[in-house]
Amino acid sequence: MNAQPTTPLGTLYGVGVGPGAPDLLTLRALKVIQEADVLAIPRPSDFGTSVAWSIVKPHVDSQPIADTGAKQERLFLTFPMSKDPDILVPAWHHAFQEIQSRLRQGLSVAFLTQGDPFVYSTFIYLQEKAREMEPLLNIEIIPGVTSLSAVPAAAGIPLADGQERIAVIPATYGLEELRSTLRAFDAVLIMKVSSCIRGVIKVLEEEGLLGCSTYVERATSKDQKVVHDLTQIKGDRCVYFSMVFVHKKLRSGVLSGKTSHGKGLQAQVHQEVVQ
Amino acid sequence: MNAQPTTPLGTLYGVGVGPGAPDLLTLRALKVIQEADVLAIPRPSDFGTSVAWSIVKPHVDSQPIADTGAKQERLFLTFPMSKDPDILVPAWHHAFQEIQSRLRQGLSVAFLTQGDPFVYSTFIYLQEKAREMEPLLNIEIIPGVTSLSAVPAAAGIPLADGQERIAVIPATYGLEELRSTLRAFDAVLIMKVSSCIRGVIKVLEEEGLLGCSTYVERATSKDQKVVHDLTQIKGDRCVYFSMVFVHKKLRSGVLSGKTSHGKGLQAQVHQEVVQ
Repeated sequence: MNAQPTTPLGTLYGVGVGPGAPDLLTLRALKVIQEADVLAIPRPSDFGTSVAWSIVKPHVDSQPIADTGAKQERLFLTFPMSKDPDILVPAWHHAFQEIQSRLRQGLSVAFLTQGDPFVYSTFIYLQEKAREMEPLLNIEIIPGVTSLSAVPAAAGIPLADGQERIAVIPATYGLEELRSTLRAFDAVLIMKVSSCIRGVIKVLEEEGLLGCSTYVERATSKDQKVVHDLTQIKGDRCVYFSMVFVHKKLRSGVLSGKTSHGKGLQAQVHQEVVQ
Repeated sequence: MNAQPTTPLGTLYGVGVGPGAPDLLTLRALKVIQEADVLAIPRPSDFGTSVAWSIVKPHVDSQPIADTGAKQERLFLTFPMSKDPDILVPAWHHAFQEIQSRLRQGLSVAFLTQGDPFVYSTFIYLQEKAREMEPLLNIEIIPGVTSLSAVPAAAGIPLADGQERIAVIPATYGLEELRSTLRAFDAVLIMKVSSCIRGVIKVLEEEGLLGCSTYVERATSKDQKVVHDLTQIKGDRCVYFSMVFVHKKLRSGVLSGKTSHGKGLQAQVHQEVVQ
């Protein structure tokens, strides 16, 4: 009889740590982060700084060693800022192997993600890999405050109300698609504008939407920047965590009878009150 | 000389209290809620229960009276579930007057909103009124976890990755618009499906999307319900806080070369790694 006693797998947590401000962490995320055996922390290079870690560090740095006497491990994992599969795939593979070896020792692993683990996050790929390699693994998602909330709060402009429609698009999707989306939707969040900023501004200008567009970078962090006049943005590149928020406000307001589609909606109440 | 000493206006906070679970409140929201002089709490009727209050109550109910000796006021405000301006406008007017009288006494008021104050929230109307009536008022927005994060977490399905596009639409917008949105976007969140559920299911069936649609009600609350097979939904009405989440997953995955638009994207890495 060679049956070995098997250690049950530890739980893998995908933890949304919010958009940037350390106090926009949720109570649930804080608890998981403080109790996990291992914090898995993504960073853009072996020597780069991790935004997720800068959010979490104030909450765990002065923590005493856990009740068990075991010290929490901080496992930094490098995910290069690249689109090249020859670079990315090995990085993901390596990251998963590191996490897997801890899970197999029965340790719980909290993988930190800026914003939310299910919204444009590296965690999505790790989860896919985990489901394939460890079908019995328990995965818990801790939703977080995303930039979809943080950017409107920073801009001081509501995202949407009543019957307004929202679109979220990565700028890299293509500028023609951007144009049709801008025409069809009331509120548009254009993500990852970084190297596309000039093209985005040009389309907004041609569509007559510069006046209702706001540029926000690093929302809610101490380095937050909000620009309401997009003509003030110079240069061909912005930081990675930047977004342009367009809100036409043609159909907002509870008693508005206007429509951006020219369909002549009757003056009516658009809002069902959300408590 | 009749100049009266004037009390500075108190601050008005729009506080997002998250989607339903009390521990999905942020640290910042908790602090504001515990320190505010007045909690303004929306409810659907004079005798109705407030979802926002059910989230916040566990955190303040056993709080001792504040350091000042003053007891925090809980100001319940009724916003009827109606589309009739003759009912709604007086309700908003009354709510703002109640809040304004506290602000003018120099008291801070935290207005609770389920989810986020700038995402389909009554607070948007109150803020508009406040800006008009009290131009010098300091308003602070505390962003919260929204159902846009909570629903994918509850369903166990990522919202979007890589170059995927997201649309958020209230079902009441019209079913033809729903059809074109479903065709153009990778991930679609259909909000407030309540009385439109049969029409929504019919459109999803006709578009061949039932297999990638999930129904979620009261995400993250103790009464959360997730239905992956929409044909199991009977009846003509669902609860108000319900959503249908459609995710085609045709373009997700980092090495996917597929596209829902048939444009023959080259096999390429869609993901810029988000740290």
